Amino acid sequence: MHTLIAEAKNCTEPKEDIQIKGWIRTRRDAKGFSFLEINDGSCLAGMQCIVDTGTEAHDALADANTGSSVSIQGKLVASPGNKQKWEIQVQKLVILGEAKQENYPLQKKRHSDEFLRSIAHLRARTNKYGAMFRLRSEAAFAIHTFFHERHFTYVHTPILTGSDCEGAGELFRVTTLPPNAPRNAHDFFSKQCNLTVSGQLEAETLACALGRVYTFGPTFRAENSNTPRHAAEFWMVEPEVAFSDLNDIMRLSEEFVQTIIQSLFKSSLDDLTLFDSYVEKGLLKRLEKFATTPFAKLPYAECIELLKKSKEKFVYPPEFGIDLATEHERFLTEEIQGPIIVYDYPKAIKSFYMRDNTDQTTVAAMDVLMPGIGEIIGGSQREERFDVLMQKMQQLNLNAENYWWYTDLRKFGTVPHAGFGLGFERLLMLVTGVNNIRDCIPFPRTPGSLEF
Amino acid sequence: MHTLIAEAKNCTEPKEDIQIKGWIRTRRDAKGFSFLEINDGSCLAGMQCIVDTGTEAHDALADANTGSSVSIQGKLVASPGNKQKWEIQVQKLVILGEAKQENYPLQKKRHSDEFLRSIAHLRARTNKYGAMFRLRSEAAFAIHTFFHERHFTYVHTPILTGSDCEGAGELFRVTTLPPNAPRNAHDFFSKQCNLTVSGQLEAETLACALGRVYTFGPTFRAENSNTPRHAAEFWMVEPEVAFSDLNDIMRLSEEFVQTIIQSLFKSSLDDLTLFDSYVEKGLLKRLEKFATTPFAKLPYAECIELLKKSKEKFVYPPEFGIDLATEHERFLTEEIQGPIIVYDYPKAIKSFYMRDNTDQTTVAAMDVLMPGIGEIIGGSQREERFDVLMQKMQQLNLNAENYWWYTDLRKFGTVPHAGFGLGFERLLMLVTGVNNIRDCIPFPRTPGSLEF
Repeated sequence: MHTLIAEAKNCTEPKEDIQIKGWIRTRRDAKGFSFLEINDGSCLAGMQCIVDTGTEAHDALADANTGSSVSIQGKLVASPGNKQKWEIQVQKLVILGEAKQENYPLQKKRHSDEFLRSIAHLRARTNKYGAMFRLRSEAAFAIHTFFHERHFTYVHTPILTGSDCEGAGELFRVTTLPPNAPRNAHDFFSKQCNLTVSGQLEAETLACALGRVYTFGPTFRAENSNTPRHAAEFWMVEPEVAFSDLNDIMRLSEEFVQTIIQSLFKSSLDDLTLFDSYVEKGLLKRLEKFATTPFAKLPYAECIELLKKSKEKFVYPPEFGIDLATEHERFLTEEIQGPIIVYDYPKAIKSFYMRDNTDQTTVAAMDVLMPGIGEIIGGSQREERFDVLMQKMQQLNLNAENYWWYTDLRKFGTVPHAGFGLGFERLLMLVTGVNNIRDCIPFPRTPGSLEF
Repeated sequence: MHTLIAEAKNCTEPKEDIQIKGWIRTRRDAKGFSFLEINDGSCLAGMQCIVDTGTEAHDALADANTGSSVSIQGKLVASPGNKQKWEIQVQKLVILGEAKQENYPLQKKRHSDEFLRSIAHLRARTNKYGAMFRLRSEAAFAIHTFFHERHFTYVHTPILTGSDCEGAGELFRVTTLPPNAPRNAHDFFSKQCNLTVSGQLEAETLACALGRVYTFGPTFRAENSNTPRHAAEFWMVEPEVAFSDLNDIMRLSEEFVQTIIQSLFKSSLDDLTLFDSYVEKGLLKRLEKFATTPFAKLPYAECIELLKKSKEKFVYPPEFGIDLATEHERFLTEEIQGPIIVYDYPKAIKSFYMRDNTDQTTVAAMDVLMPGIGEIIGGSQREERFDVLMQKMQQLNLNAENYWWYTDLRKFGTVPHAGFGLGFERLLMLVTGVNNIRDCIPFPRTPGSLEF
């Protein structure tokens, strides 16, 4: 059996015989030997391997270069270089698959993110995208661990849905009929089917049985906008907690963000450091501050006052009742110099399921704003009072019959409950400093873009 | 802060003051006091609570019954009953939400699975479905832990796709156009978009960069068949391992199934025991055997010989070249009295991406068959040789241009690699004995069924 490079790096003593398998990242021919840096994806750093000229191994190497796959056997010895602890003195080498240099798109030079998106099937072989996708995996695991430790049940809410979570976004339609089927043709579900824009409503039904639940799955928005922050397909995390209110969920969201960042510092410091070095200088320091400083908490009305009192020229003048725009979010996080949780939003700009506050003008909603990113979490206490909920739906001209199962929760043993949604790629943008969502997901889907 | 019942159950000593919140499962009025069994979803067992007649708490209880939500404060004391270790002597009780008995669909009696599917938004409040969804969550966590411990990177392959993984199943089409749009109307992706039937091809690209990867996400089949084993939307687990062959992946699949079962014995014995008691007698014993006995491994050709030599009357006569039918799988697992891994299937009945064996008639494919369930895992070593792959695609009249990125992997540093796919709900059917896939996922999607 071969050893992963991540494991070989952690050896505490030399080894007489070790085998690794991976891809040549760089090759340097010196007098008497060749240096190879081998990467197998298990960690950012490669393993330095020395192949002496005139050996069978060197003959087998021939002119293999960047991108070729290779199996290497040899001795793991302390490296005289100060860049790495170990290196391998190669005794046996087999080229498993060549990468013809004239065609191989990933040469040693730096490539633009745009170019790498066009070869998304290969970009995970670069340091940056290897690091991104390992971080993505570690962040996902940290999320599952966070909720598991806190007695949350992981639930799979449906992707195919007949409901639309009230205008959370534009819908993709799903069908088994060809584009120009006759009007009376029979579709798979006998009614309109959409891709989910949020699992919240279904998650509420499960929270009202299992207590604490969360979803973590793909979510879809058919918005025809090409921005660096929007994708048609992205992953969302949605905890929903029975017997909890707005304060509980604000605390949970803060604890969540801080715990995930701390977990990544433990699991993935090398990969994070790459982003600190090449993408956003000072990233680690900023993240450390986010992970250790309590988030500011400010009612929406006070935020509007802050914005009004400021000397900033805003494109959208701050007035009670507006949705906070990017410019406002930026000002607030800069003013506070850190994350803010804004809460108690005007009822008129929020969804029907958010709980009415006693002031009759605001609802128990909250957003978590992060410096440089803006909103990464949106949540609320849910309206658990049957009569109030029905009234709210009526005011918005929603057909309560379509939501019979949702309103049932308020008929039978209703409980105060609250939850939030986090866009997983937004979290990855935060922890890597990468400013385009397309570079945080292996195969991004945006208008007109469906390759691979 | 209130305490979860799962936590209260684990107390090591009495508590003067404890608060729980949950739903009344049963109420029994005796002389001088009422018994309540409160469940909050954190575990199968409820907490027995004693409310003395004539107290304020009892007045507050009024005629509240099954389904009502309640907040209870009192003393946690050793229970004189032998069914539970602890009970609560109630000092304060607040009814949070009533459940009018004449309307509440979940009465104390047993309900049929068919009826409970029609109230899927409430069924997690029953013992059986509460247990199912907690088990689902624990199994998912065990899967993530299994791979994380083995240095696998969790990858999110796209749900929206322009490729179809070669006939793995019928496709759902995704569009932003209304049903009768003009022929030249512009669709979101400017080309046909389908829901994924497998993340394998994309996972291969990531394995050829990161080494070991796995997917765990929703998958879709638009097959218009109403069977207890098929759903239009289900979750799949697909590991893909660079530098590995058929033997490695057979070992991995066995280790995987055994480890997940063992994890559930540790995390979820109460919930598993419910299924042993009420769904499949002897379940725990069978699972324990699966988890500890090595799986039989048999080439397909030998399986055919076994079937031919048997005295069974098969509807489909066994001949080399046929797909194994349910009757064959049943015979084999009964004959072997345990799980079998069947491998080296005839080339003609398997997909283009499976690696040709040297005999020219079989491919390096394998299926894991479990007694009572049949196939739960299908996998293969992938064809990593560029020329052989191109030839295979040509023989099947596949347009290689559509797979340019997939064939690229064979041009640039190709490596032997292998992987498998596991239907998550099949695994849940195995560990619970439940024989309908609709009862293993919170909101099942089948032809004509899209409620909630």
